[in-house]
Amino acid sequence: MAFTFQINNDVNFTHNKELLKKAENLKPKLQHTSIDAVDTVTIIKDSTSLGGYSVRKMDKSNSLDKPLKKGESVILDFGNHHVGHFSVHIDSVGSPMDAPLTLRIKFAEMPIELVKDSKDYTGWLSSSWIQEELIHLDVLPTVLKLPRRYSFRYVELTVVDTSPKWKAKFSKPRLETETSVDNDKLNSIKLDDPVLAKIYKVGLKTLQDCMQTVFEDGPKRDRRLWIGDLRLQALADYSTFKDTTLVKRCLYLFGAMAADDGRIPANVFTQPKNTPDDTFLFDYSLFFISILDDLMKFEPDSTILTDLYPIAKKQMNLALNKVKKSGELSLDDSYPVFIDWSNAFDKSTAGQAILIYTLKQFINLTKLTGEDITIYQKKLNTISDFARTSLFDKNTGLFVSGTKHELNIASQVWMVLAQVMTDDENKLIMNKTISKLFPVKNIATPYMYHHIVEALFVSGLKEQATILLKQYWGKMITLGADTFWEAFDPDKPNYSPYGSPLLNSYCHAWSCTPVYLIQRYLQTEK
Amino acid sequence: MAFTFQINNDVNFTHNKELLKKAENLKPKLQHTSIDAVDTVTIIKDSTSLGGYSVRKMDKSNSLDKPLKKGESVILDFGNHHVGHFSVHIDSVGSPMDAPLTLRIKFAEMPIELVKDSKDYTGWLSSSWIQEELIHLDVLPTVLKLPRRYSFRYVELTVVDTSPKWKAKFSKPRLETETSVDNDKLNSIKLDDPVLAKIYKVGLKTLQDCMQTVFEDGPKRDRRLWIGDLRLQALADYSTFKDTTLVKRCLYLFGAMAADDGRIPANVFTQPKNTPDDTFLFDYSLFFISILDDLMKFEPDSTILTDLYPIAKKQMNLALNKVKKSGELSLDDSYPVFIDWSNAFDKSTAGQAILIYTLKQFINLTKLTGEDITIYQKKLNTISDFARTSLFDKNTGLFVSGTKHELNIASQVWMVLAQVMTDDENKLIMNKTISKLFPVKNIATPYMYHHIVEALFVSGLKEQATILLKQYWGKMITLGADTFWEAFDPDKPNYSPYGSPLLNSYCHAWSCTPVYLIQRYLQTEK
Repeated sequence: MAFTFQINNDVNFTHNKELLKKAENLKPKLQHTSIDAVDTVTIIKDSTSLGGYSVRKMDKSNSLDKPLKKGESVILDFGNHHVGHFSVHIDSVGSPMDAPLTLRIKFAEMPIELVKDSKDYTGWLSSSWIQEELIHLDVLPTVLKLPRRYSFRYVELTVVDTSPKWKAKFSKPRLETETSVDNDKLNSIKLDDPVLAKIYKVGLKTLQDCMQTVFEDGPKRDRRLWIGDLRLQALADYSTFKDTTLVKRCLYLFGAMAADDGRIPANVFTQPKNTPDDTFLFDYSLFFISILDDLMKFEPDSTILTDLYPIAKKQMNLALNKVKKSGELSLDDSYPVFIDWSNAFDKSTAGQAILIYTLKQFINLTKLTGEDITIYQKKLNTISDFARTSLFDKNTGLFVSGTKHELNIASQVWMVLAQVMTDDENKLIMNKTISKLFPVKNIATPYMYHHIVEALFVSGLKEQATILLKQYWGKMITLGADTFWEAFDPDKPNYSPYGSPLLNSYCHAWSCTPVYLIQRYLQTEK
Repeated sequence: MAFTFQINNDVNFTHNKELLKKAENLKPKLQHTSIDAVDTVTIIKDSTSLGGYSVRKMDKSNSLDKPLKKGESVILDFGNHHVGHFSVHIDSVGSPMDAPLTLRIKFAEMPIELVKDSKDYTGWLSSSWIQEELIHLDVLPTVLKLPRRYSFRYVELTVVDTSPKWKAKFSKPRLETETSVDNDKLNSIKLDDPVLAKIYKVGLKTLQDCMQTVFEDGPKRDRRLWIGDLRLQALADYSTFKDTTLVKRCLYLFGAMAADDGRIPANVFTQPKNTPDDTFLFDYSLFFISILDDLMKFEPDSTILTDLYPIAKKQMNLALNKVKKSGELSLDDSYPVFIDWSNAFDKSTAGQAILIYTLKQFINLTKLTGEDITIYQKKLNTISDFARTSLFDKNTGLFVSGTKHELNIASQVWMVLAQVMTDDENKLIMNKTISKLFPVKNIATPYMYHHIVEALFVSGLKEQATILLKQYWGKMITLGADTFWEAFDPDKPNYSPYGSPLLNSYCHAWSCTPVYLIQRYLQTEK
């Protein structure tokens, strides 16, 4: 997720057994559905689709009935994005099988992944993520059941080698899906706008395919629980599946495995055992508070509040230690603020805003526990005052960031979300943002776009929010998305942060939020 | 084995259920031994070894204790050639495992296989035989147990990719051997000549590693029952393990699955079910007779004789149909004679000799059954007379072959083995062969060398036989053989019939015969 690898081998972590046991008890039973491949397809050039390629359905003569010789391949289309296990029946046709079969199987979320050769990948992220297997089978017929889980719509089967005496014949390609939630149990939603309806549907599939034994960030790549993604997934979940069990499990996992100094890590692993990652992000640690507060608002639960409030408090106290007397947040590289992948803008004001945003939520949690809020209310006032007096530039009507008084979108968006100013002022700020800083440039994450859209909604600019939502997420659908992507810059649709679409995650948790935005800001009147 | 692929899809085969059931009942229980890797080694240039490379033991600092990062590899040495299943424990060291491990595992019988990159292989034989796997592991630690069987002494583990945050650590590399015979049960043999002693030991290991649920031709490549290999393996087995059960099983397999016209195929498959190959070789079909007769001489068994004599008779009758009135054998491309891989010499006289060789054995079998031999004895006389009068050239004292009256070693060797002439004449022929046709040139198979050496022994040239045996098989040992090879031309030690040592079988059944030759011709006086 973050571009810079943090390696903090020297950090020790607590493993709170009681909380880990609670997390274990909340572990969902995964649900499975068998799906047969819908079609065999071929890759075609298509300038309207991502990377310039889409697929065309094959006519029947090119279907699986034809045995494949050395070098031949077939592409299966399962009709939609899914997560799960693949199996296929394979037989030999011709003379007896006098050599093993060498088979390459490539799984793809988007057609462009099938165009790129994995041998050409030289990016900085591990090539181990490329969903491709090379398999030798000594004896046919067999039912090949791959043990690993993949995230895909397309499967390419390539016969790397047989012998001149026989060919390989494939049949019954099947996918056993894997997710912790059942789409069928959802109440349907009626949206008159067909673009919004499509965006909602794709967002819902994105969320579903990321809901496994934890909220994963991406079922293809990373496949783990990040707290920044969890916050948005939980909000999307409350608008749709309403599965608070999985949210609680994830909160317990983070709460159980803080570093010895109290900081909650940015992500945790759950295989082969629960293990915190040695990556720390200032805003991500604070979002533990945010997720707990969002949960209390959706479904109050005194047990989890009692269990996790002390840990939330620790995050806030650690954060407040970074605040100067003046009320200015001052961070260093050891505990950076994330805000967005891009490091091309100054993040200090957005960081200050996230502290305010989460401090307000923390005060709410403190009230729920009955503890004294005085000291935190004072801090909130000081930090907010600093923002209003020292970070807000009356000349431009916008927040500035850093020593160079940089104007950027993230500062405005987070200050609006933190409601540092009045509603009217927020509306003015966002209007100024639109006039001075739009169109959005050099932002490649649905994560940042989510916050921009939500800030527009929060400040009363519903029309502009809806336009941006439809433009950004709608463009992915136009380009062929079945689920929303980890990275997308509309000005550079083929951009990959990893140097190859093979490494991109085309179903990514933090991009599922249109379901939340639509339900919260566009459905309330119904 | 043969250079030319035969594809005879239109041939139908019988499947004699009764005989197949007998074959099944004789199926051996495989024996297993756990072996830990002896050393970690590194490849070194060594002009005295096969292909110019051998291995050097690593010092302790380079052992498995060191975790491996992306691109690093380690070579395990199991100390000798083995056949079986490989397992290794793998853990991650460093930060939590934030990407799958991509691991390449390459198995090698000889160091040269580790020098060659399988990506460069472009030969005509299926690359599927290359003993290399590419494996992705999502969760560490794990015990990786590969499901396939390999034939190897060396295992190279290469970490293709991890992530910058952790390394892979390997431990407990282990091999579970697989063979149907137990070396420990053998009576030891004392040979004063250290070269012969070494040759005997390596030949015995070759035989053992090829003895699986059938006599395989090569446990690395082909892995199936060829009748030409079986004949030599059975002879070697009678001199060593004396496991007639496996010989009988293999005879029943061939006997049960002749083509509709009666011909026994050159090889059969036993996985996933008993299946005859659609390859036919004139001499190989006749060797069914030879193997049955050799068995009766070693261990008379009236049941198997009764069961299989009619099938042996069919082979002979089919062969005799190819004989002209003059007594000349006349073959065409639909049923070629093998003799040797090389197609650079005329094979007609050698084919005539093999017919005589096996007809004599067939007459012996017929006598055992009590049936009338008259007609076969007459045929034998005619065919032998033709050889003596029309194929033997009195001027040179050697047999000629083909319309161009070619002089080649194979003709002399097989005529001597068939004992067409008197013992004295045979000795003269082999002496002339030595003076006119030696040194042996352009023969690359231990199969042909075996028959040359045996012809020398049979004709009383024990010293010359021993010299050739030691020169040929001893040279393989000098070049680093732990088991004897499928192909070896001493003049071109790096020759591969497949264009790459990656495809060569360095443990091959038809090269194990020194154990038989030594026991039969060099141990009789003890």
